[in-house]
Amino acid sequence: MALEVFHKDETLQMRRKLIGQSCRLFFSHDPVKIMRARGQYLYDENGMQYLDCISNVQHVGHCHPSITQAAAAQMDLLYSNTRFLHDNIVLYANRLAATLPKKLCVFYFVNSGAYHGHLTSLIDISPYKFRKLEGQKEWVHVAPLPDTYHGIYREDHLDPGQAYADTVKSLIEEAHKKGRKISSFFAESLPSVGGQIIFPTGYCKRVAESVHEAGGVYVADEIQTGFGRVGSHFWAFQLQGEDFCPDIVTMGKPMGNGHPIACVATTEEIADAFTANGVEYFNTFGGNPVSCAIGLALLDVIEKEDLRGNAVRVGGHLKQLLLQLQIKHPLVGDVRGVGLFIGMEIVKDRVSRKPATEEAAHLVRRLKEERIVISTDGPWDSVIKFKPPMCFSIEDAERVSTCIDQILGELEDTHQKKGTADEVEV
Amino acid sequence: MALEVFHKDETLQMRRKLIGQSCRLFFSHDPVKIMRARGQYLYDENGMQYLDCISNVQHVGHCHPSITQAAAAQMDLLYSNTRFLHDNIVLYANRLAATLPKKLCVFYFVNSGAYHGHLTSLIDISPYKFRKLEGQKEWVHVAPLPDTYHGIYREDHLDPGQAYADTVKSLIEEAHKKGRKISSFFAESLPSVGGQIIFPTGYCKRVAESVHEAGGVYVADEIQTGFGRVGSHFWAFQLQGEDFCPDIVTMGKPMGNGHPIACVATTEEIADAFTANGVEYFNTFGGNPVSCAIGLALLDVIEKEDLRGNAVRVGGHLKQLLLQLQIKHPLVGDVRGVGLFIGMEIVKDRVSRKPATEEAAHLVRRLKEERIVISTDGPWDSVIKFKPPMCFSIEDAERVSTCIDQILGELEDTHQKKGTADEVEV
Repeated sequence: MALEVFHKDETLQMRRKLIGQSCRLFFSHDPVKIMRARGQYLYDENGMQYLDCISNVQHVGHCHPSITQAAAAQMDLLYSNTRFLHDNIVLYANRLAATLPKKLCVFYFVNSGAYHGHLTSLIDISPYKFRKLEGQKEWVHVAPLPDTYHGIYREDHLDPGQAYADTVKSLIEEAHKKGRKISSFFAESLPSVGGQIIFPTGYCKRVAESVHEAGGVYVADEIQTGFGRVGSHFWAFQLQGEDFCPDIVTMGKPMGNGHPIACVATTEEIADAFTANGVEYFNTFGGNPVSCAIGLALLDVIEKEDLRGNAVRVGGHLKQLLLQLQIKHPLVGDVRGVGLFIGMEIVKDRVSRKPATEEAAHLVRRLKEERIVISTDGPWDSVIKFKPPMCFSIEDAERVSTCIDQILGELEDTHQKKGTADEVEV
Repeated sequence: MALEVFHKDETLQMRRKLIGQSCRLFFSHDPVKIMRARGQYLYDENGMQYLDCISNVQHVGHCHPSITQAAAAQMDLLYSNTRFLHDNIVLYANRLAATLPKKLCVFYFVNSGAYHGHLTSLIDISPYKFRKLEGQKEWVHVAPLPDTYHGIYREDHLDPGQAYADTVKSLIEEAHKKGRKISSFFAESLPSVGGQIIFPTGYCKRVAESVHEAGGVYVADEIQTGFGRVGSHFWAFQLQGEDFCPDIVTMGKPMGNGHPIACVATTEEIADAFTANGVEYFNTFGGNPVSCAIGLALLDVIEKEDLRGNAVRVGGHLKQLLLQLQIKHPLVGDVRGVGLFIGMEIVKDRVSRKPATEEAAHLVRRLKEERIVISTDGPWDSVIKFKPPMCFSIEDAERVSTCIDQILGELEDTHQKKGTADEVEV
């Protein structure tokens, strides 16, 4: 057990003083102090164990010894940059190429996941950020989220993929009428902040057709969803079928199991256009031998431990358990997901589908008391999101489902009592 | 000795195919393949040793065992993110705070050095990038480089600090006349890409006064120059005296000895303004326990091995040796620098000060044959730049100086022969 340097209160006090307050803590009213972690478990300063349902970055499990060993071995040899020739970067690019459609064969290694919202240029294309800040730029066009639970076309629509793709087509036509051109379409392959959304069948292919017709490129953001999280495929965009291929794929977060590494994969044509501007692209840290050694080790662990198979099995079981909770508990409006990317939407009632933001927050707080770390997402923070380390087990799934069952029961009891009290008052 | 996976030619071939060609190699016509490194030495696939005069990122020496150990130990414990409370981030922020003026007391940890030119928002403020690309934006104002060798005020000026600061004042006045406001002044504390420039005394303080008067902030970019490289001070901006304090300091490159870590330090007032926009700032990788453990280990090594003292002694000695070469060789126009940040400018002749770009490139190529890795910088790539790992030794300094002496002699012989031949031809 690692020793604490400061008592928790002191750490918190120092953090409030020294670290910008825009950097927020989980459970900000009573944050947890995590000292160590292994697999899907976190341990606080008292050695208390928490089940981690949200650390998608620590993809193959916290502190996997194979990753640590690969990192330490390469750190002892060479931690230089890509201006020197080295085997690791080409080995790694080659391994990544094997997971992608053939035309995505040129790689740019970076060290940050182009996280939406760090720079004005990224805030400008991130609705959930710019809506809180400087507003929408005239060159940004926001397509309706293809959300068949809350959106304009729902699960009863015959072809929501086509219907939502048509909204993008219309958006492009509107932009053209205003004299604007289309550069690119950006989308997470499964929108996470959007609320753990699964794109309807055929959506991406048809969107790509419209975007290409307008002279733009399709950028698939696989930063949260790549590296086998969906189980059946290595990349979430592959869920849309073999006849869909993005022009650019961005990858990050899980790529280094916590280590800062990210990458952009693209076509020769697009890479050539970038080269043609004549300006060197140098990234101080991106693609260095240590980052690539870690990336390679992670790919090995995914294969050796059959973590994609585990995502299929455990994710499938967890989804089934949550679907059973949906039958039992009126608060559960929707359960959706694939592999170990699952969302459970909490609603006031199933007819209005009104998001139950408070109840979802209560569930997260209560689960913390049960030593389960989970969080919410979506436009109304009403979606309980599961994106645990890929070693999440059947037992973990059952534990979290049992706890949710109990807490939803408590909540419904309270609601009923309040309801009865209200009726009495009336 | 680490084993090669591919023969050098094959690595090169795979790299050309798999990695975007905008990512360039050192010595692109005959790149070196580096397999391992230690201290200030690089070793290629044949075990050949190169003296490294340019790897400022590997600050305390390549693959320092203390850094590797600190990284591996923390990787085995916890590699999570800053949404969980942890001691390392506050310990590290506290240590950094101790190196800075008191008012720079709030920290934002990131994982990339805001390297000039990765995103349009940074290209827009990087003259050496935007001049090759989309040109200068109307909201960007470029101050003359306070270069007393090539600039508008030279070493014979009585107060170049005041004179160059006045150019900034004028620039602000011009901007105001056009109805523009001033947000900030960005400058490396010692411009590196600009040609290893040392700001004249009093420049920064007076610039800060004008910028503040206009309602702007002074951003000191310490990404290449911080962490004791200048020897006498921890930060290069401190060379400008205790009565100068920037409002924001950016730090990166040497901070993690190769590991991707960077930071922004600022005042409470500016941090509060950032918090006030109400939007969370979350960085997936920035400030994680491993990055902070590495950062702390690096600070310890700087102290324990007295690397600032070494920068003063070895840098001072190297500068003296280069100044002797200046006396002997007409090709050496200027020698400038502080600590282990030194530039030697190669010129056609000392009167015109015309940059000798070709001769500088020749010198770099010939030094590579002598197994010394060095490069050029500055607007004409005529400045031989020294920014070696901080463990660079007196012997290393003498070796590189002896080699430069010899190569400059060869170059001058060739010039003289060509000159004589030309005369005969006439």
